[in-house]
Amino acid sequence: MNELELIARLAPGLATNASVVVAAGDDCAVLELGLPDRWLLFKTDAVVEGIHFTPEAPPRCVGHKALARCLSDVAAMGGIPNSALITLALPRPFDPLWVEKMYEGLNATARRHGVAIAGGETTTNPERILISIALIGTVEKARCLLRSGAKAGDALFVTGELGGSLAGKHLEFEPRLAEARWLAGHFAIHAMIDLSDGLAGDLRHLLKASGGGAELLARAIPVSRAARRRPQGEPSAKSPLLAALSDGEDFELLFTLPASEAVPLADAWRKRFPEVRLSCIGKITAQPGLRLRDKKGLQPLPEHGYVHFA
Amino acid sequence: MNELELIARLAPGLATNASVVVAAGDDCAVLELGLPDRWLLFKTDAVVEGIHFTPEAPPRCVGHKALARCLSDVAAMGGIPNSALITLALPRPFDPLWVEKMYEGLNATARRHGVAIAGGETTTNPERILISIALIGTVEKARCLLRSGAKAGDALFVTGELGGSLAGKHLEFEPRLAEARWLAGHFAIHAMIDLSDGLAGDLRHLLKASGGGAELLARAIPVSRAARRRPQGEPSAKSPLLAALSDGEDFELLFTLPASEAVPLADAWRKRFPEVRLSCIGKITAQPGLRLRDKKGLQPLPEHGYVHFA
Repeated sequence: MNELELIARLAPGLATNASVVVAAGDDCAVLELGLPDRWLLFKTDAVVEGIHFTPEAPPRCVGHKALARCLSDVAAMGGIPNSALITLALPRPFDPLWVEKMYEGLNATARRHGVAIAGGETTTNPERILISIALIGTVEKARCLLRSGAKAGDALFVTGELGGSLAGKHLEFEPRLAEARWLAGHFAIHAMIDLSDGLAGDLRHLLKASGGGAELLARAIPVSRAARRRPQGEPSAKSPLLAALSDGEDFELLFTLPASEAVPLADAWRKRFPEVRLSCIGKITAQPGLRLRDKKGLQPLPEHGYVHFA
Repeated sequence: MNELELIARLAPGLATNASVVVAAGDDCAVLELGLPDRWLLFKTDAVVEGIHFTPEAPPRCVGHKALARCLSDVAAMGGIPNSALITLALPRPFDPLWVEKMYEGLNATARRHGVAIAGGETTTNPERILISIALIGTVEKARCLLRSGAKAGDALFVTGELGGSLAGKHLEFEPRLAEARWLAGHFAIHAMIDLSDGLAGDLRHLLKASGGGAELLARAIPVSRAARRRPQGEPSAKSPLLAALSDGEDFELLFTLPASEAVPLADAWRKRFPEVRLSCIGKITAQPGLRLRDKKGLQPLPEHGYVHFA
C-alpha cells in the first residue's frame, strides 16, 4: 500500500465538525469560522533535505521554496495568505548560518506577499533538515476556487511555462497570488489547481474532483526552455513535451472557464500581466479520461508509464 | 549558539502584519482576522521518533500525544480548538498498520474535543517518523489568557500532579481544555501557560512575559506518584520534588489570579472538577527571580544545574 492509498483509506473516517467546508482533497482546507463573507484557508507543506532540496541548494532559496509552495496553494484557491508558522527540524549540531540564511529567504518572500511569520518551533531531526510550513489565509466565499466545478466545454488555461523545474525554477518560482486574485475577481473561473505533480497529474486531480475528462492540444502546451534543454538520447530521457506534461514543481496555475470567456481573458491578461505567458491548452469534455491531440490525431494519455509517449 | 538563542536573534526581524496580536513567545500565535469578538489561535507542534516517542510506543498513543500537545497549548490560551492538519513524514517503506493505529489515536482525541482533521500531507523522512500538527482554534478576546499579565501578589496555581511524565503520562495525558475554559469563564485569571518544559522552566517563561518573580512553597507542590517512584540512590537521581520542579511534558496548567480569588476558586474547583487536583503552590512577587520555601527557609532556585538541589 502506498501513502496515497493509505490516506485515501483513512480519510473518510477522520474527525470532522461543522466548520469544515472542504477537507482533504483540494489545495487548501476551507473552513467556515464565522468571518463575515469569508472562509479561512488552512494549509501545511513540508520540504525535506535530500528529497525537496539538496544540501548544496542556497539556504535562502530553500526558505523561499518552503513558503512559496504553501503560497501557491493559497493562490490556487483565489485566496489571500495571512500568517505562517515555521516548524524547523534540525540535526544537532546545526549550522546557524544556514538557518539564518534560510530564514532570510523565507522572510523576504513573506514580506513580499504581506504574510506574517507568527511563530513556530524548532525541533530535532538527527539525520536531515525538514521545514514544515503551516499557513492560513482567507478568501471571499464568492471567489473561492476549488478543483471541482469544471464543466464540459470549458476552456483549459495554464500560466507560465512547464517542465524542467528541477533545473532551477523549483527554488525560485514566484507563487501566482496576484494572477489568481485577478482571475477570481474578473472572470467566472470554474475550477483551479496549482501544478505541483505535473500538468497531466494535476489535471487528473482536477478532473477527479470535477468529473468529466479533458482534451489537450500538444502544440499549445507551453514547454519551458529548461524542458527543451534536457539531455536527449538516453533511454530514460523525456521529450520536451513529455517533460512539460509530467515534470513536477511547476507551481503554475491550471484553470478552466467557459469557452466564451477565453478570448476576453486572453486579451485582458496580456494587458494586466504582459510578462507572464498564458496558454489555452485544451478543453474539458464530458467524456472521461485525458486525451492529447497532436499531428497523429487524438490519442489517450495513459495514467502511468507514458515515458515513451510523445 | 543553541536553537533558542538563534530563534531569539531572528525573531525581531520576522515579517509581520496588522493581523498579529501575539506572535512567537506565547503558547499559540494570536491573530485578529475580523472574527466578531474573537481571535484566531494558531499553533504547530511536532513529535519525532526517538526524541518524543520510542519505536516501541503504542502508535495509538503517539497519535494521541501529537495532537494533545497542541490542544494543551490552545487550552493554555483559554481557547476552543477547531481544526488540525497532519503532516506525516515517513521512512520508505513504512508500516501501514502503524500509521493506521496512529491515526486511530489521533482521530479519537480529535473527536473527543470536537476538532476536525481537515487534511494534511504525507512526505518522506527516510530515517524516522516525524508527525507535525498544525492546529487552529478561537478564543473570545475578553477571555484570551496570555503568559503576560501576572501581577505581584497573585496566587500561583497548578492543575494535576507533576514529575515523572516519561513513565507513561506523556503518552496518555488529557489536555486541560475543559478546565481552562471554565477558569477563563469564571475567574479573573491573570496569566496562564501549559507545562511542557517543567514547572520551574515554564514558570520562568511566564515570569519573562509578565515581569516580576515568584515564590514557591515546596510542600504545596503536587508531586506525582511517578516522580516519587523514580529510582533513587544513583548519582544522577532526582529527588521527587526536583522531578516535579524540572521534569518536562506534564501538560498541566500553571496560572495566576488575584490572591483574593484563591479560596473561592479552590472551593468552586472541587465541585466542578472533583477528580483533578488543584494546588496553590506559591505567589507572584515584585522581586525578580524564582525562590523556593522549604524547611530550610527561602532559597533561590537557580536557573541551571539544580540537579543537586532539593
